[in-house]
Amino acid sequence: MKTLNHINEERLFRNLSKSSEIGAIPGKGLRRLALSDEDKEMRDIFKAWCEKAGLTVRVDDFGNMYGRREGKKALPPVVLGSHLDTQPAGGRFDGVLGVLLALEVISTLNDHNIETDRPVEIVNFTNEEGARFEPPMLGSGGIAGVFDQEYVYSRKDRDGHSFQEELQRIGYKGEKENRLGDFHSYVELHIEQGPVLEDENKQIGIVEGIQGISWLEVTVTGEADHAGPTPMHLRKDALMAAAEIMHNLEKKIANTEVTVTVGKISASPDTVNCVPGEVYFTVDIRSTDDSLREEAVEEARTLIREVCQERQVDVETTALWNTEKIDFDKGIIDAIEESVEDSGYSSRKIVSGAGHDAKYMNNIGPTAMIFLPSVNGKSHVPSELTLDEDIISGANVLYQTTVALAEE
Amino acid sequence: MKTLNHINEERLFRNLSKSSEIGAIPGKGLRRLALSDEDKEMRDIFKAWCEKAGLTVRVDDFGNMYGRREGKKALPPVVLGSHLDTQPAGGRFDGVLGVLLALEVISTLNDHNIETDRPVEIVNFTNEEGARFEPPMLGSGGIAGVFDQEYVYSRKDRDGHSFQEELQRIGYKGEKENRLGDFHSYVELHIEQGPVLEDENKQIGIVEGIQGISWLEVTVTGEADHAGPTPMHLRKDALMAAAEIMHNLEKKIANTEVTVTVGKISASPDTVNCVPGEVYFTVDIRSTDDSLREEAVEEARTLIREVCQERQVDVETTALWNTEKIDFDKGIIDAIEESVEDSGYSSRKIVSGAGHDAKYMNNIGPTAMIFLPSVNGKSHVPSELTLDEDIISGANVLYQTTVALAEE
Repeated sequence: MKTLNHINEERLFRNLSKSSEIGAIPGKGLRRLALSDEDKEMRDIFKAWCEKAGLTVRVDDFGNMYGRREGKKALPPVVLGSHLDTQPAGGRFDGVLGVLLALEVISTLNDHNIETDRPVEIVNFTNEEGARFEPPMLGSGGIAGVFDQEYVYSRKDRDGHSFQEELQRIGYKGEKENRLGDFHSYVELHIEQGPVLEDENKQIGIVEGIQGISWLEVTVTGEADHAGPTPMHLRKDALMAAAEIMHNLEKKIANTEVTVTVGKISASPDTVNCVPGEVYFTVDIRSTDDSLREEAVEEARTLIREVCQERQVDVETTALWNTEKIDFDKGIIDAIEESVEDSGYSSRKIVSGAGHDAKYMNNIGPTAMIFLPSVNGKSHVPSELTLDEDIISGANVLYQTTVALAEE
Repeated sequence: MKTLNHINEERLFRNLSKSSEIGAIPGKGLRRLALSDEDKEMRDIFKAWCEKAGLTVRVDDFGNMYGRREGKKALPPVVLGSHLDTQPAGGRFDGVLGVLLALEVISTLNDHNIETDRPVEIVNFTNEEGARFEPPMLGSGGIAGVFDQEYVYSRKDRDGHSFQEELQRIGYKGEKENRLGDFHSYVELHIEQGPVLEDENKQIGIVEGIQGISWLEVTVTGEADHAGPTPMHLRKDALMAAAEIMHNLEKKIANTEVTVTVGKISASPDTVNCVPGEVYFTVDIRSTDDSLREEAVEEARTLIREVCQERQVDVETTALWNTEKIDFDKGIIDAIEESVEDSGYSSRKIVSGAGHDAKYMNNIGPTAMIFLPSVNGKSHVPSELTLDEDIISGANVLYQTTVALAEE
């Protein structure tokens, strides 16, 4: 089956290539942390592109940027987007494709002089990654009412700079009245960040929902001692306790339906010849089944408590974040599926393992996502890659889906 | 058994209390970094005390300060001492006791009008801690020929100030010919910095030597993946590999004769929702038995290799530092032991887990050490504490040992 190409590949890859320069790090990666100088530079470029495409640009109080193309009718818009921030040593595609392909949809509508019934808005959400300001998705969570403005503004990075301070500093603190209003549909195109589409040789993932996620923060407090004169049996080594916990989390809690990840760790005083007195680490637990996830969190808490009791060290385990499995909008899923079929791409239904802005958007309106294959399943690393041909497929599916939704 | 008290407690604690003011920080700690203004202030006070006690004071080219009390005969001296510098947030006793109790020995000899056969010298070594200028023990290492003058002078602190610059600035750059000459014996009294004496309720530690130390640096390289979409069986998680290694180092390599400490650890990319692709950690292995230590290092290397092979992650293990066990002088150890027995204090033989100036002094002449209990085994923290009664015991043992050695 021959596929139709609506978009302008040359323009799309020129934009992508420009984005790949802003915050570039060795190995073709990007370091474009939310509200950093690099983020500001990318935002300025994106704003200019939107204006060039005839969009009306506005910024809300969380720094979320919207570009609006009016429709023939005064109806709630179709919204497309994702985020332009990255991990500290992230890739060129995560988030970026969702925003740049949304812009390409707009430009393609312009190219073909298409007037849609509904307005189309494209959006760049602030701090999706949560790599600088925790938790992730502060921008979309803010407009969805998951986080209030005071909470978002007070989030601090490792150097003690607040979200509010940095938002103001880079000149992207906009108005509350600019927040996204009622919308007809939100479609987010994103890389899969996993190996499934590649493994099954599918071009498009039609995303039905997002796994539930629980984050725990664990602080083990033992006693800092000089490594030399302190015999093993008199130690209260916080890091050895953490090692036993981590090893058991992997062996006893994780399984084929529940993933467990310890992503962050730090020890204090962190010198070669000192028994660590305090260790901090995070635990990320995910499942497509909420009850399995909740069970795993309880088991993890018990395990942590038991190891620390046995070793006579103190421990504090706090829930940093909890989110249930979510189901996307059936109508949008059908629209994507039809576009895929019309275009002749191979596809499969899939559940996202990662959180996305679409997760919070789903709280306030009809939402779904489109996944593109990740080479070797990699993301959040400089070697993150989605092939040009898959990007073109994605842009076309997003375009056709938008046209269909905008006529509903 | 009743113990004899020779020393003047009031004088001793007045001096200690004065020292505790110089560089005082909250929590009763001291910040008296080598060659800082605080170090200069303490040196000036110490010099005045020495002169008041009738000592001839000289300073060598490393800033080491000596106070000499002549003997009846032209023999090599008995030398007592330690260091007056501290960690950035250190305690009032580490090093300080060795110098102030040496001074108290001199004053007690004066009180009792005792003329010894041998001269007695007391010494304050420069930069024992290595907290400002790395490596530690530059002053004693300098006179022992471990470090040459050019190397010591070129050491820089974090602000780029050199050892030489700072030595000159505070006015303590003396002459090379003032370095310590041949000596009969060097005795260093020090806090244990560990929990053993307190745990076994002993007043005095008779130090037989210093443990051998091996440091390894380990870098595990797996694959960084997004925590969500990557199933457990497809991961190459560097931190889970490190956790298994650390747990097994503790369970399989450490024992009552070999300590194993993982003091430093860092994971990359170090974000909550990312499987760590790289983890760096250090391993500190110590024993009083060199062959046990070397065996443990080999076993640790094998264990690390096997865990990483099994998990299909890469690993690089490098030797960062290796130092053999040091045996102190049998004659001085016997002299200390006799003094302890005569005085009626409880004691045990002990091997130091930490390095001290005595380590380098042992290279150039007969050396041994006396340990006093550390409350809760703590040192290098403001809460570092050695009880008054233990300080008095230590001063008496040091006095009697000195009297005995000075008549040999």
